[in-house]
Amino acid sequence: MEHTVKAFDNDIGQLRGLISQMGGLAEDAIARAMQALQRTDLQLAAEVRAGDKAIDAIEAEVERLAVRIIALRAPLAVDLREVVAALKIASVVERIGDYAKNIAKRVPMIESEHRIEPVSVLPAMGRMAAEMLHDVLDAFGARDATAALRVSESDSALDDFYDAIFRTLVTYMVENPATISQCAHLLFVAKNLERIGDQATNIAEMVYFAATGAQMPDRDRGGDQN
Amino acid sequence: MEHTVKAFDNDIGQLRGLISQMGGLAEDAIARAMQALQRTDLQLAAEVRAGDKAIDAIEAEVERLAVRIIALRAPLAVDLREVVAALKIASVVERIGDYAKNIAKRVPMIESEHRIEPVSVLPAMGRMAAEMLHDVLDAFGARDATAALRVSESDSALDDFYDAIFRTLVTYMVENPATISQCAHLLFVAKNLERIGDQATNIAEMVYFAATGAQMPDRDRGGDQN
Repeated sequence: MEHTVKAFDNDIGQLRGLISQMGGLAEDAIARAMQALQRTDLQLAAEVRAGDKAIDAIEAEVERLAVRIIALRAPLAVDLREVVAALKIASVVERIGDYAKNIAKRVPMIESEHRIEPVSVLPAMGRMAAEMLHDVLDAFGARDATAALRVSESDSALDDFYDAIFRTLVTYMVENPATISQCAHLLFVAKNLERIGDQATNIAEMVYFAATGAQMPDRDRGGDQN
Repeated sequence: MEHTVKAFDNDIGQLRGLISQMGGLAEDAIARAMQALQRTDLQLAAEVRAGDKAIDAIEAEVERLAVRIIALRAPLAVDLREVVAALKIASVVERIGDYAKNIAKRVPMIESEHRIEPVSVLPAMGRMAAEMLHDVLDAFGARDATAALRVSESDSALDDFYDAIFRTLVTYMVENPATISQCAHLLFVAKNLERIGDQATNIAEMVYFAATGAQMPDRDRGGDQN
């Protein structure tokens, strides 16, 4: 029996390692996509797009390992909850990687002779979103329900940020009709960052549940208005 | 042994039933969200938003059932592939439900005294996206790899539709700056529909893999340009 417990602990440790690796890649992808946007660096944007395959590959590995653990070790209660949480978190991190890739895809579309000014408001929002992802994966690693709750609470600040950027961009479009197409792409970038925050919140809820067995208390889900 | 095989078949049948039920709800949610948008029907939009909880609940049920099947029946090869496919498809259908909910959320934001004309181009795109979802779930039900491949191929038509709508909306914004904010919401609606097509394509790839054990041949993934 001790042998089995040890084997399970090893398996779970491997799962956690894969998720932490995926999370690091996704965090990096967000930062690099925002940098590419900021500098209109097409080469860097292409790298971010290509790099998403590595995140997808780790997700597939998490899936194989989780299914194998459930089938071979038949874990119960807390342990099963943890394996299922890992499986779901991997799928959410993969989605976050897709959002970063989508941001990178827009870099060639905002290229122009004249740098449009609203680009400058986006990096701070990108840092906020990447930080939420970082913090929630730390909470997962430490099985820290309180830290997970904090991440979930910070999402409303990101939503407010998004709403402000939405208004800024619309105003800018009204005043500079020639930039409407580029600003529309920036709207999508802001929306992708806002969605990354939502996904980090989803992970926070999974971490909370895996750690406590209870649903996270309902916060006032304001959500973005735009 | 025969007893076990029969029990497994029952379990799988139940999984398939749940996914077909989820798919029906999601398809309905897309149609009703587009109707609400078209008529600026706030009541209907609120119903679509509230209805998303039912889709989420079925996804949770699929997850519990799939984990139980893997743990109790320890299915091998083809059977395991099918259970894992069901689990992943449920998660994708849940995302599609979220896109429909997001469209419904935008209905109050496009309300105005003057109906803006580009709204009229969206329902046809909505029907195309809902049809892809319908067809891919039929393919899943029939384990029909060829039908799945057809759905995947139809995604480029939806991407082209999206690109055309993006250009139409940007042109309309340039000519009618007073409608920029509303048109921005319509851009997001079109993007949500385009994403529904991407997710239907993801399901098509899973159906193909579950049915054949091989990856779907790479099609030319044009993807939307905007």
